Amino acid sequence: MDDQNGPGADDAGTERLDEDLRDRSRAVAPALDAFLHPQAIAVVGASSDPATLSGLLFANLVDSHFDGPILPVNRNHSLVQGVTAYPDLASCPVVPDLVIVCLPAPAVARVVAQAGDLGIKAVCVISAGFAEVGTAGAALQASLVETALERGVNLVGPNCTGVLSGAGSSRFNATLGRTVPRSGGTCMLSQSGAFGLAVVEAMEARGLGLGGFVSVGNTADIGVTDLLLYWGQDPGTDVVLAYLESVPDPRSFIRVARHVGERVPLVVLKAGRTPAGRRGAASHTAALSAGDVAVDALLHQAGVIRAGSIEEVLDLATVLGSQKHFRGRRVAIVTNGGGSGVVAADACENNGLVVPELGGVVTGALKSLLPAEASVGNPVDMIASATARHYGDVVRALGSSADVDALIVVFNTPVVATAADVAAELVSARGDLGPDVPLVAVFLNREGPPASLREAGIPAFMFPENAARALGRSVAWHERRGRWSHPAPTGDASSSVGTPQAHGRAIEWSLGLARQRAHDGWLAPADAEALLGAYGIAVPRSIPVRTPDEAAAAQVELGCPVVVKVAAAIHKSDVGGVRLGLTTPAGAAQAARSVRADLQAAGMAELAEELLVQEQIGTGQEMIVGTNRDPLLGPLVVVGLGGRLVEVLGDVAVRVAPLRDEDVTEMVQTLVSYPLLTGYRGGPVLDVDALHDVLRGVSAIAQDWPEIVEMDLNPLFVLEKGAVAADVRVRLAPDR
Amino acid sequence: MDDQNGPGADDAGTERLDEDLRDRSRAVAPALDAFLHPQAIAVVGASSDPATLSGLLFANLVDSHFDGPILPVNRNHSLVQGVTAYPDLASCPVVPDLVIVCLPAPAVARVVAQAGDLGIKAVCVISAGFAEVGTAGAALQASLVETALERGVNLVGPNCTGVLSGAGSSRFNATLGRTVPRSGGTCMLSQSGAFGLAVVEAMEARGLGLGGFVSVGNTADIGVTDLLLYWGQDPGTDVVLAYLESVPDPRSFIRVARHVGERVPLVVLKAGRTPAGRRGAASHTAALSAGDVAVDALLHQAGVIRAGSIEEVLDLATVLGSQKHFRGRRVAIVTNGGGSGVVAADACENNGLVVPELGGVVTGALKSLLPAEASVGNPVDMIASATARHYGDVVRALGSSADVDALIVVFNTPVVATAADVAAELVSARGDLGPDVPLVAVFLNREGPPASLREAGIPAFMFPENAARALGRSVAWHERRGRWSHPAPTGDASSSVGTPQAHGRAIEWSLGLARQRAHDGWLAPADAEALLGAYGIAVPRSIPVRTPDEAAAAQVELGCPVVVKVAAAIHKSDVGGVRLGLTTPAGAAQAARSVRADLQAAGMAELAEELLVQEQIGTGQEMIVGTNRDPLLGPLVVVGLGGRLVEVLGDVAVRVAPLRDEDVTEMVQTLVSYPLLTGYRGGPVLDVDALHDVLRGVSAIAQDWPEIVEMDLNPLFVLEKGAVAADVRVRLAPDR
Repeated sequence: MDDQNGPGADDAGTERLDEDLRDRSRAVAPALDAFLHPQAIAVVGASSDPATLSGLLFANLVDSHFDGPILPVNRNHSLVQGVTAYPDLASCPVVPDLVIVCLPAPAVARVVAQAGDLGIKAVCVISAGFAEVGTAGAALQASLVETALERGVNLVGPNCTGVLSGAGSSRFNATLGRTVPRSGGTCMLSQSGAFGLAVVEAMEARGLGLGGFVSVGNTADIGVTDLLLYWGQDPGTDVVLAYLESVPDPRSFIRVARHVGERVPLVVLKAGRTPAGRRGAASHTAALSAGDVAVDALLHQAGVIRAGSIEEVLDLATVLGSQKHFRGRRVAIVTNGGGSGVVAADACENNGLVVPELGGVVTGALKSLLPAEASVGNPVDMIASATARHYGDVVRALGSSADVDALIVVFNTPVVATAADVAAELVSARGDLGPDVPLVAVFLNREGPPASLREAGIPAFMFPENAARALGRSVAWHERRGRWSHPAPTGDASSSVGTPQAHGRAIEWSLGLARQRAHDGWLAPADAEALLGAYGIAVPRSIPVRTPDEAAAAQVELGCPVVVKVAAAIHKSDVGGVRLGLTTPAGAAQAARSVRADLQAAGMAELAEELLVQEQIGTGQEMIVGTNRDPLLGPLVVVGLGGRLVEVLGDVAVRVAPLRDEDVTEMVQTLVSYPLLTGYRGGPVLDVDALHDVLRGVSAIAQDWPEIVEMDLNPLFVLEKGAVAADVRVRLAPDR
Repeated sequence: MDDQNGPGADDAGTERLDEDLRDRSRAVAPALDAFLHPQAIAVVGASSDPATLSGLLFANLVDSHFDGPILPVNRNHSLVQGVTAYPDLASCPVVPDLVIVCLPAPAVARVVAQAGDLGIKAVCVISAGFAEVGTAGAALQASLVETALERGVNLVGPNCTGVLSGAGSSRFNATLGRTVPRSGGTCMLSQSGAFGLAVVEAMEARGLGLGGFVSVGNTADIGVTDLLLYWGQDPGTDVVLAYLESVPDPRSFIRVARHVGERVPLVVLKAGRTPAGRRGAASHTAALSAGDVAVDALLHQAGVIRAGSIEEVLDLATVLGSQKHFRGRRVAIVTNGGGSGVVAADACENNGLVVPELGGVVTGALKSLLPAEASVGNPVDMIASATARHYGDVVRALGSSADVDALIVVFNTPVVATAADVAAELVSARGDLGPDVPLVAVFLNREGPPASLREAGIPAFMFPENAARALGRSVAWHERRGRWSHPAPTGDASSSVGTPQAHGRAIEWSLGLARQRAHDGWLAPADAEALLGAYGIAVPRSIPVRTPDEAAAAQVELGCPVVVKVAAAIHKSDVGGVRLGLTTPAGAAQAARSVRADLQAAGMAELAEELLVQEQIGTGQEMIVGTNRDPLLGPLVVVGLGGRLVEVLGDVAVRVAPLRDEDVTEMVQTLVSYPLLTGYRGGPVLDVDALHDVLRGVSAIAQDWPEIVEMDLNPLFVLEKGAVAADVRVRLAPDR
């Protein structure tokens, strides 16, 4: 809550953390220091046979030239792979600060206890056989965690592939992977151990430098948000990559990711997007996975960059690892071959970048630098005769132009210049550019980009499309982060969005009574409307009726065109349960008879008992707003084009509740049908603010009433002034 | 026309070529043989200085170890880079069959004339300075072509980067690029020379074998369709890649590409997709480019695979170059690490592939092969302990299962097995699989896939997403090709689609009289409706009126609910020019007054003179059908969801006319709103066949009347029986 987050309580940005997250972060920091920057490492269960997993891990650790003591612990051998071994942790000549355990599952807790007794804070459990193998394993894991908690030990794993640091003095590899990449500012965590190591290999193949890697395994203790918070305040970390198959606590994740994202970009590869993927994920991490649209919304709200592929993860790390600031979206393209300029320009526009016409000043400068046959438009085609010097001069000229925010420089198969010479000129020119002007190189040749570019911090690619995509997404992320300006609602009910007066009235609404009147969990219409009213959401005047005569009288009382419809919370139109545009008492009475006759004919006579006569909302745009409860992500809020076409067109936006103001605005603006609200083809300008208020109200309802599992306002008419929910259906979870 | 294509006239498939295309193909075949499989090559203008373009090309040719004579022609030197040179072609000791010209533009025609006199058929002109540099260059090019035509010489270029063959005995490199890839079945043509060579380099980096490469340059003579037809009948060609910035003759391209595509897959990278890209393309090839939606339609109709990036071109060539047959979409995934299985499964589903549950038989077999901890679902996770033998056994078991159409095998960072051993097992297992069961390998490790896989014809990738995308698109292409079953309409009017009776009646419609009655090029409503009538497209009954009294009388005469609307061909609803649902004469009269008053108030009194009283179509689904004329692609046909939302929702499908039956069906089915036509949520099943007929009619109108530049049927009501065009607007091109 805001009053818990006074100014100065958290000085690392505008996204303030809850006290409990800050406490946790402080509590695990010493252990994470030990996990990622240890002084001495023990491997309990280290085997002499490098063909076993524990032998392999130990061999990898020895090979990684860690500059502190490596202590194999083995009850049966006094030497392990040539290194003096000790029978237990207590016998080691120095107390290690990081312990890696490779013993069978039942033996692990004893080691953790011993470590705790020695004051060791960090234990990484490689061993499998815990929660991932069923009930017995889950019990073993629970007991392991209890032991660790009691002794002040923090765990990575169990069932993981280890921990690795590429960072300078504490470089070491305590994983099952053989590769220790070069040192760098990219850190990675993975919910799949083998896959994480594979990506580490791919990073090394790409020449990306690694700061640290943690395979979180079953996440019995140290988890995703712990690592994000740790790396988020680590000055050596430039970008954090995460492979996720599930997001355990979505609302904490949103807050932590945004907090961390203010300093360090987070790139997430979330797998299990599709039905087949989810099936794989379920059997792999024993976690249910949520629908991908909702996951997408969650990751968007968390401010992370969701990568579409492993390659895109690496591409993004390539750009974000070396470029901290981005001036804007206008890209100048420089090439020595027309076709690749065209391809690069296409790729820029496809990725939200702009390839503007260049102004007279810079065009004049380019003309003086290049031969007459060159094209000084954008793309700048220096033609095949371009020399390395041409590259350098043109990059400097463009980089100092007010028309240009970023450069993509493409080098084709050498005809005159060599790749090495061009790279050297680019490295030199890079020094003359402003720090907020990205220079991205593309070397479309057999050898790919020269290593000298990478070493100079110039992101370099083989293909223009990868360069443009990574740059476009990086710029968009940077722009979006610049708009994060207000603290968000916390996850608890008392601080949810929703106007205070709506809130005060909400408390008057009685769930207990409403539940008694509900049918199959569906609220009675009057209760549903009262709920909306308590949150400031308007509904049409309506009168419940049971006979044609009552319908006629109700029409007279309302004194306007009315709708006669079934009262029950069903998809009324689909069963012929609605009659529109009734302007006379006789018409209303006849409509009541006709609805009843149709429902009887359809075998739904019981639904025809209770009808509603309702003021007809004649104008405005039909929208749908609703909430439902995702089994993993909790309450979601949905807005979309309403009416009969809603499901066919699928023009909806989804967010995880509670909604921030930016969520509310964004989700409405991203609708394809948004122009219908803003004066479409001479039509009226509708009250978008009122729609925003409805979304805030629905978000507050979803937060305040966990018992509500489903709610549809459909149609919600957005009018020139205000918005009215012409129909509302609310379903409660079964009583506990 | 069909009667020109009797059975047997063209035996290479069901897509028959016009006689003129067949004649052309036969005529240029000898020259193309010489371009791609020469016996002796002369380079006219070869320089001794390898830093010049002509010197570089000559050096590349010498380095490529061509096994026939290489003949430098140079008036000033008797030795060029150590090779005996000759003053002119006639002086060469043997007559070359391929001549490369690197002289300044004005000197080229003389060489071509001399070549023709010597009986040489193939001249490749590297020289720039022709049509790409303006009017004078265009004149020079025209004269060059005339010289060539007169002497029976075929030209590649001018303004190109040369020709290269990777094929066995005729291997040579007469290009400005230094790389001669290994020999293989992938051929490539490029409208950008430097870019084409860069892609050739990238092919070599990927280990793709090249059959031939041609930079078509200004395409003065030998062009895209010539090369497609040549490679299409070449038994050594497995796949053809094309980089295009424009498609010069779209309807010929469609016919040639489909004809060739029956034997060889075509992968096209079409650049200039977006506004910025188009600007680049225009300045690069002096060709206007058409809107990308229409280009997409054209390439789809041509049956080519449009790649989204250079990398995708290479990925597709990797799969299609080694796999000719595809059984279906059901993929089994095999991995030694869960995460990469999940990622691969996601990627499969995202690319139209299916990752099915496996049946009991194969699951049982897998259980007997794998340890208990392995997961025998799909993905099959053999876990980190998997050996090379496990890979081989599991691949064989899955490959012989009736549940599986294709395999993606993922190898993670080695823990137990080595990459080389697993590759060897996969090569062995590949031999045991059916030829229609693709086996695609993914080696997610630092070194990438072992070369042994490539050599054994197993497509191999570093990332699962690239593998799944290339496999998915290949399977989809193969399935679609399997449905090509009927000859298509040719491009001329007399064979356009459209029912014969519509056709007969069309001839009765008089363009001349209609033009006289048109206003600003817009046909009078009666003429537009007569045109539709002639093509069998129904319109509502309507009566033109000029006064409220006439409107009342017309309502009586029509005897049903009517619409009163402005007669002029404008967006009537936007200006308040339509009144619906008028059931009485008085209502119709009042509507006429009210429309007139509104238009007068809006300053459009002149539009209010002529009104129409029209039978109101009360039911059905509002669609839009229309045609317009793209400056490069010619007539297009459009269908979409109609009514007020058409432009906001943009739910349309576009095709180049004339439409084949498969186009008609496909474009309707691809609409997001298609379910609205087929009995949506208890609604009526509408007459989709009638909509198909309207599309055929509009296609025929577009073909028959080139003067029609724009036509909208909006709304077109699709009813339970039939379809009615409630409003039609037709615009003619200005009179010639």
